[in-house]
Amino acid sequence: MLQSKLFTRTTKESPKDEVSINAQLLERAGYVQKTLSGVYSFLPLGLKVLRKVEDIIRHEMDALSGQELFLPALHPKENWMQTGRWDGFDALFKIRSRYEYEYALGATHEEIIVPVVKKYVKSYRDLPFAAYQIQTKFRDEPRAKSGLLRGREFRMKDMYSFHASMEDLDAYYEKVQQGYATIFSRLTLAGILTLASGGSFSKYSHEFQVETPTGEDTIFYCKNCDTAINKEIADETHSCPQCHTSGEEKHTSEVGNIFKLYTKYSEPFNLTFMNEQGGTDVVLMGCYGIGTSRLVGTLVEIFHDAKGLRWPVTVAPYHIHLVPIVGKDAQMRKELEAQYRTAQEHLVRAGYEVLLDDRSDLTAGERFADSDLIGLPIRIIFSERNHKEKKAEIVVRMTGQTHIAPYHSLIQTIQDMLPWEKSSLAV
Amino acid sequence: MLQSKLFTRTTKESPKDEVSINAQLLERAGYVQKTLSGVYSFLPLGLKVLRKVEDIIRHEMDALSGQELFLPALHPKENWMQTGRWDGFDALFKIRSRYEYEYALGATHEEIIVPVVKKYVKSYRDLPFAAYQIQTKFRDEPRAKSGLLRGREFRMKDMYSFHASMEDLDAYYEKVQQGYATIFSRLTLAGILTLASGGSFSKYSHEFQVETPTGEDTIFYCKNCDTAINKEIADETHSCPQCHTSGEEKHTSEVGNIFKLYTKYSEPFNLTFMNEQGGTDVVLMGCYGIGTSRLVGTLVEIFHDAKGLRWPVTVAPYHIHLVPIVGKDAQMRKELEAQYRTAQEHLVRAGYEVLLDDRSDLTAGERFADSDLIGLPIRIIFSERNHKEKKAEIVVRMTGQTHIAPYHSLIQTIQDMLPWEKSSLAV
Repeated sequence: MLQSKLFTRTTKESPKDEVSINAQLLERAGYVQKTLSGVYSFLPLGLKVLRKVEDIIRHEMDALSGQELFLPALHPKENWMQTGRWDGFDALFKIRSRYEYEYALGATHEEIIVPVVKKYVKSYRDLPFAAYQIQTKFRDEPRAKSGLLRGREFRMKDMYSFHASMEDLDAYYEKVQQGYATIFSRLTLAGILTLASGGSFSKYSHEFQVETPTGEDTIFYCKNCDTAINKEIADETHSCPQCHTSGEEKHTSEVGNIFKLYTKYSEPFNLTFMNEQGGTDVVLMGCYGIGTSRLVGTLVEIFHDAKGLRWPVTVAPYHIHLVPIVGKDAQMRKELEAQYRTAQEHLVRAGYEVLLDDRSDLTAGERFADSDLIGLPIRIIFSERNHKEKKAEIVVRMTGQTHIAPYHSLIQTIQDMLPWEKSSLAV
Repeated sequence: MLQSKLFTRTTKESPKDEVSINAQLLERAGYVQKTLSGVYSFLPLGLKVLRKVEDIIRHEMDALSGQELFLPALHPKENWMQTGRWDGFDALFKIRSRYEYEYALGATHEEIIVPVVKKYVKSYRDLPFAAYQIQTKFRDEPRAKSGLLRGREFRMKDMYSFHASMEDLDAYYEKVQQGYATIFSRLTLAGILTLASGGSFSKYSHEFQVETPTGEDTIFYCKNCDTAINKEIADETHSCPQCHTSGEEKHTSEVGNIFKLYTKYSEPFNLTFMNEQGGTDVVLMGCYGIGTSRLVGTLVEIFHDAKGLRWPVTVAPYHIHLVPIVGKDAQMRKELEAQYRTAQEHLVRAGYEVLLDDRSDLTAGERFADSDLIGLPIRIIFSERNHKEKKAEIVVRMTGQTHIAPYHSLIQTIQDMLPWEKSSLAV
């Protein structure tokens, strides 16, 4: 991609109405734009990051035998009346059509998925299975000041699983826990499994929390048994409910949660099945959420510095920023251009996604500042001075590490400098 | 994919409340489920089709240098007031938050994209460019009886282009016309370029119409100059506005439309730029829509028979349905199973997506009926009789053509029987 063709531009000034780091940096770098408080437009660079996050999650949900579907955002009022949440779910947006229908705007999808699967579940032989979607959710939040961390409109992966027995639900719940660990590790996040409130229907649920200086949540982390408890449900001593060691306080952001719903939503819709003895049982359910746009915000909160964004390779909109610094000498210009075009071609062929800064109306300093702000994992600088030795300068954005490498070993050097997840390359 | 693992099931009965062919067949085959009138859940098979349609469109938009973004569904009331459409757009869903904000629910996105790009467009050097999204739209339609053809919630690709001059807008509009022709041809649809109303701001817009027996639209098609005019704007003689030949009446469904918006939406938001002479001009715009879920419905209206769906290869959820008919002889069972597992492996390796009917509780007749209903392009039947000659039966769903082919040339035979678009294969 040629940077001159991107319709977005970077800006030096932080948007006045944004207090969160993630929204400030993402807006300044042209990844998102605020359309309303808690409602963001994803611009080309931002959509690429969001899609990479969602593709990693999709891949792991498929590995858990999740079947992807796509449920609507307009929900019948009756379904939400059925579970008591039409009035019980505070942040539910309600719409009155001019034809006197009333709808809820999808804040979560238990009320839709249960009637959908009810059509197909008759016997124990139809169980277990899991279905998921990656989709926009809507919540009428009182405050939305944390950029992508708490939106009125946001993206989410929600999976629902359906089981004939408690053992089966428990076993699947464990597998999802492991799948979540894989996801956060691919996103280079240290997800801390945290005990949280199980609501009215379960003793505990589990949250995945990551440590951030600006985190909204507080957890108590037990080094002894590597688990944690959300402050909301911790007792006065803040000790670990498993081994009673005193926990270490951490500020965190929630990036995922998993619940055993048991029959909370299957019962109101009478989602039952014929068991092996010919009797009738209520289907047991689990649900498993990850806020994908929230994850993009969380990644920024963790991976940034004073100069801008610092994307992990697995979710960067492009892997490599090619920044040629060309002087006035015509012959040198021609040689350098041939060189960086060749490098671009080789990199693309090797599966790297490349953003080429082809802009000629800015100083080298302005272009480096832009490159820092946009935050691609690797920058390769072609300059006259290094060209004389047939070399280019490689900068790793995350660490600041630099290396002057010969043209013929650029790819090898990049691979040595950064741990690439093979699946994040395009070939 | 193993068919026994799909959580959806086929049903023989047409849903009572569906009058349209597309909804009847898609629901019976387990592709979609109606959640509300005009609001459908896309189930795993249906989502696969939708995604393939959308991927073909995405590919062609990228080829037109469209930059993909993702705009929100919650829109500020002020933006719609600015263009006069808060009251002027009948089908606009309006939401009142409990915090006294008012939102429109995205029915189209001119009111959002123009303020978004205004932040970046300063000079003629920032033009032209085009941005598009593939997204859910919401319209408070009075009637929604045509299944996926007219929804209250539906999927759409909308692209917007921005230009400094009329010539540039005209040239890009022509290129999009050609891109649309490519899209419909990849979907095996004969898109008829049709003159339609230009609204208050343009003499004509263009629609792409496809002939369907159940089409809501009527057009007059001129054989002489291969163009057509929508009945809504045709004169009493129904003659071609270009060559005055009398047009042939056709019933059609609209699958795409393109508009020159000129300054209709740039003016209200004061989207201007500095021209080459240093003066200020208003940006010229075009917009280009394709209803993607509507296209799924249109494909069904055209490609079906009394037995069920008949997907073109480019959008089928899977390319090949493997249907082994296994008897009671244990040795034969084992041999057959080894054979069709090997075939599956080879097909997958060659890039075909395969659905394997591994269900043992149904008769051969029931499984063939299911296979017809689901409508994958190719069915391969493994049976004892043919196994004795080391052969399998291949059935092309679209034509009914059958062929008994030796095991070693299954892939070659499939390739000869159907014109495969290479890009629709997974390798």
